[in-house]
Amino acid sequence: MASRVLGSQPLTFVTSNVKKLEEVTAILGHQFPIQIVSKDIDVPEYQGTPQEVATQKCKTAASILKTPVVVEDTSLCFNALGGLPGPYIKWFLKTLKPDGLVKMLSAWEDKTAYALCTFAFSPGGESDEVILFEGRTDGIIVSPRGPADFGWDPCFQPEGYNQTYAEMEKDVKNTISHRRRALSRLREHFTSEQDGACNKIAGDTKEPVAWF
Amino acid sequence: MASRVLGSQPLTFVTSNVKKLEEVTAILGHQFPIQIVSKDIDVPEYQGTPQEVATQKCKTAASILKTPVVVEDTSLCFNALGGLPGPYIKWFLKTLKPDGLVKMLSAWEDKTAYALCTFAFSPGGESDEVILFEGRTDGIIVSPRGPADFGWDPCFQPEGYNQTYAEMEKDVKNTISHRRRALSRLREHFTSEQDGACNKIAGDTKEPVAWF
Repeated sequence: MASRVLGSQPLTFVTSNVKKLEEVTAILGHQFPIQIVSKDIDVPEYQGTPQEVATQKCKTAASILKTPVVVEDTSLCFNALGGLPGPYIKWFLKTLKPDGLVKMLSAWEDKTAYALCTFAFSPGGESDEVILFEGRTDGIIVSPRGPADFGWDPCFQPEGYNQTYAEMEKDVKNTISHRRRALSRLREHFTSEQDGACNKIAGDTKEPVAWF
Repeated sequence: MASRVLGSQPLTFVTSNVKKLEEVTAILGHQFPIQIVSKDIDVPEYQGTPQEVATQKCKTAASILKTPVVVEDTSLCFNALGGLPGPYIKWFLKTLKPDGLVKMLSAWEDKTAYALCTFAFSPGGESDEVILFEGRTDGIIVSPRGPADFGWDPCFQPEGYNQTYAEMEKDVKNTISHRRRALSRLREHFTSEQDGACNKIAGDTKEPVAWF
């Protein structure tokens, strides 16, 4: 297998989570034309919009590894809070747990939210532009239901479903998840490789909210 | 004027806010033994604890300017949220305004909070350790009162006072503010300069909260 963009170079997925690599390679499937390897390096996270956070993280990873890299960042954005906690969700989840996230929204009627996954790719050169692949899943924030072992999944109920992410069968979740959608964009990019025809952001993000 | 640590080198305060430089030099006073200049450079903000955010920002500024630098970071920490929004307060304030900050806390009985100002200093060398000077002011989050022209000041009422920061005379606020307290530590450090006798963190921060 080889890629017109990367030649025979593998793509390094920067993550400390082996399970995430397994999930990513499973979703990308056997037809994906590039070998994916993972590396656990310490890349600082920046503040900013989800796009800025992913772009900066990717640039830093590329400058350290000097090879084609991809990084991932996930945001959970409450519409009533203009998109926040957004990229800071991990800090809020760690402190407040899903119950506290619900509590934080209790004074607002609008419980809508969206999960946003961003994969950021750099060919590895210092002046190379970063390409973002975004996947968004809309939903609402609800009182936690389902197993509590995976992040904010118990309090996020995708639009059109009456189960939370945590309650869903993994197969069902994986067809609609924000991560699946972002990875589909990434796969599309590397399998079609219409050189120069890709946008800087390939995704289904709607109009940016106020703070973006 | 000269400093034993810095010799005749000036100390560069990295800020885009000329008013902040004026405030800092006013608080440090004429007796401060080092010349302070300001520089407006683009330094990315990292995610992390207030201490990590200030340390990283300072290291980055030092690596760019290669001269003695000081940077400032301010957090507003809600005890009910385990210290959050903390260093992310600027994003929450921008989106939610003081009214929204109050609303976010409405489901919790505990309205206590603290304002934390951190000045981070580096002598400018790549391997130089960063020294932090912290100032903390405890208070409660209240419905906004007073002029709305300075950040979250209208919704922060310091402990022992019945006025918000925004309602206070500037002179009064400046005797108790988190920034004043942090600058006092910084001034103390540079005027006494007990070489090697300073702690890595010089401040009045209480026991760290859960997420620190």
